Amino acid sequence: MPESFTEVAASVAEIAKGFHARGWLLGTSGNLSAVVQREPLRLAMSPSGVDKGQLTADQVLSIDENARIVSAHGGKPSDESLLHIRIVKDRGAGAVLHTHSIWNTILSDLYASEAGLAIEGYEMLKGLQGVYTHEHAEWLPIVDNSQDMPALADTVGKTLNEHKEAHGFLLRRHGLYSWGETLAQAKRHIEILEFLLETIGRTSLIKAKQAAI
Amino acid sequence: MPESFTEVAASVAEIAKGFHARGWLLGTSGNLSAVVQREPLRLAMSPSGVDKGQLTADQVLSIDENARIVSAHGGKPSDESLLHIRIVKDRGAGAVLHTHSIWNTILSDLYASEAGLAIEGYEMLKGLQGVYTHEHAEWLPIVDNSQDMPALADTVGKTLNEHKEAHGFLLRRHGLYSWGETLAQAKRHIEILEFLLETIGRTSLIKAKQAAI
Amino acid sequence: MPESFTEVAASVAEIAKGFHARGWLLGTSGNLSAVVQREPLRLAMSPSGVDKGQLTADQVLSIDENARIVSAHGGKPSDESLLHIRIVKDRGAGAVLHTHSIWNTILSDLYASEAGLAIEGYEMLKGLQGVYTHEHAEWLPIVDNSQDMPALADTVGKTLNEHKEAHGFLLRRHGLYSWGETLAQAKRHIEILEFLLETIGRTSLIKAKQAAI
Amino acid sequence: MPESFTEVAASVAEIAKGFHARGWLLGTSGNLSAVVQREPLRLAMSPSGVDKGQLTADQVLSIDENARIVSAHGGKPSDESLLHIRIVKDRGAGAVLHTHSIWNTILSDLYASEAGLAIEGYEMLKGLQGVYTHEHAEWLPIVDNSQDMPALADTVGKTLNEHKEAHGFLLRRHGLYSWGETLAQAKRHIEILEFLLETIGRTSLIKAKQAAI
Repeated sequence: MPESFTEVAASVAEIAKGFHARGWLLGTSGNLSAVVQREPLRLAMSPSGVDKGQLTADQVLSIDENARIVSAHGGKPSDESLLHIRIVKDRGAGAVLHTHSIWNTILSDLYASEAGLAIEGYEMLKGLQGVYTHEHAEWLPIVDNSQDMPALADTVGKTLNEHKEAHGFLLRRHGLYSWGETLAQAKRHIEILEFLLETIGRTSLIKAKQAAI
Repeated sequence: MPESFTEVAASVAEIAKGFHARGWLLGTSGNLSAVVQREPLRLAMSPSGVDKGQLTADQVLSIDENARIVSAHGGKPSDESLLHIRIVKDRGAGAVLHTHSIWNTILSDLYASEAGLAIEGYEMLKGLQGVYTHEHAEWLPIVDNSQDMPALADTVGKTLNEHKEAHGFLLRRHGLYSWGETLAQAKRHIEILEFLLETIGRTSLIKAKQAAI
Repeated sequence: MPESFTEVAASVAEIAKGFHARGWLLGTSGNLSAVVQREPLRLAMSPSGVDKGQLTADQVLSIDENARIVSAHGGKPSDESLLHIRIVKDRGAGAVLHTHSIWNTILSDLYASEAGLAIEGYEMLKGLQGVYTHEHAEWLPIVDNSQDMPALADTVGKTLNEHKEAHGFLLRRHGLYSWGETLAQAKRHIEILEFLLETIGRTSLIKAKQAAI
Repeated sequence: MPESFTEVAASVAEIAKGFHARGWLLGTSGNLSAVVQREPLRLAMSPSGVDKGQLTADQVLSIDENARIVSAHGGKPSDESLLHIRIVKDRGAGAVLHTHSIWNTILSDLYASEAGLAIEGYEMLKGLQGVYTHEHAEWLPIVDNSQDMPALADTVGKTLNEHKEAHGFLLRRHGLYSWGETLAQAKRHIEILEFLLETIGRTSLIKAKQAAI
């Protein structure tokens, strides 16, 4: 039985508080969405400018496919609502989560010239949908950041189309986007990718140091 | 409707506990203030020498523009009250927060010879008041530390005047100051600046290592 | 008096939530088991694909020595149940815990060519069963990862037989396994080994850098 | 009015849980004590082998100056009780806290050949008793570890006598000891020293790397 808006909003708020505690949504950064209804599209969307560490279910907004608020209460939906909507449409995602972490920010910059980075051989990859072995090569695309949201949504759509297997992407010096069929799966994907980005970031420090000796 | 002293004190205590949990106010370090009334000035100020991880609303003091206690209960206001008062006056701030974190301490030292550091290109900068794009160059001044509070308050005033766009400053081998129109905005600013300082600190390690190879 | 399944399941859930908070069980990774009964074997086992940060006692399964569910409620036992069962049998363990941490993942890779790493001289080693001095040399074997669980269980058994003193082992690019006579001892062992792995990981960075100067 | 044993034990348990959450008392490591009565000496002492993250007031023991249990309930006092008693006697401390952190362990090793390390110029030093300026040079002695507790207690006594200004000391590859007139002051000292040790540890990585370029 489909979840009501209230139930979905409560889950969004809970995930937001947990991610904020980990330092992945500091300073009102990041955004979280979940599909409540597909036709017409109704997305539960985190509001703009609200402390994610104190997000409550009644602050979560309902928006339509044009990022317009359809819920009774006010607020301003996340600036990046168009990106969430694009991912929901192109990937059929049930939930989209966007975090700003130290390591995803660092790696989005470090690998920007290659437009992405490969993550291979880690057992953690098995938690990504459709991945059943650690001998998997995950390519995480890196997209240049922009303040022109419609243009950025198109770039994101193009990137998703070129990398149909990707479970997420990085926006340069901005953060990580991932998604899932449900909020639980999206949360799982974010946790896995954040873990792997930190592992790779720290490993690069150690391995290059060894090479330098 | 303006918040009562009790409400403001409760918010100060809550922020203090959260920052202490993150390791930004260890060992009774740091201080927090919020304007309760402007004329005459009444500032809710964290007390000196109290464990910020256990700060309660009733421990928060009320001080005037000379840092004298006007609240009924005793205690000793933060040693750095004069800095808070200077920032409130010169910037019209509604709240001033000061943290001691590992990364703000390290960077305050690393960039001391340049009297500041530039933070550019990060989406996180958009959370700073008046900043609407990641293509923003934020200059974070570094001021030498001193135990002479009136003199330090003057140096801080001079620095604020020379850097009217700055959203914060570092005291060398001491910590970070930031502020906002409200406690919520000041908290947001601290979270953003702490995040960016850690990002820059860790990035400098990685990039210099790559240069060394 | 032996603990009931419900009590054991509650302890498993509590440990899971604590380890998830530390970032050692992100993205539904890792698994936890505890012996409820030896003959026939009944193991309380964490379920597959469940967020360990929200694991409840009633989600914990009861499995037999063939990893088949014998509890009334459904669910899918951890993919790695066969490894837990092998350790319970070969070591007579009362509980087996498996974590995926940043540092255990990095070191499982860094020392893979040596098939293990030595941990010596740390007071923390005294918390391992049978160790009474810091002048102890602990060898932590590293086993190559595999998706063939029966084969991996055999490799694990072989490794345990070759290293009868070992208190744990690493699976390459996968994680750490440790165990104890009780859940409390297994938890203690994991905390000690995770601590030592991070200490060694960070020390290797510092010492090699000094050598490079 | 002096605190009762029950109140002191409750404070000890609360500090233990907080330090365990920070990763400073993992795997039942570390110990905490507080003077309940001076003549004859009665010390509230954390028990050996108990998970500090779950320490309750009723698990805290009362011991005399020979480290013998005088409380009604059983348990085994910390192995390092003799060190606590020596510090209480030689320094007149009201509370003694001992932590095992990643950074205090690393630095206890890194600076072992110099038998200590200097910490200077940090504002955080002002939180140490008797220190009123950041222009303070704190010497943190490093003592070699030993399992011979009476001998180690004598070495500690000798070190305290040679460094009468020291607010703490490190045991090599073991951990940090600090103390205070009260539990609150001891907690403050530990937080300050742990913060400074991490700052110095991370700074050494960055500065040596710069020297290497």
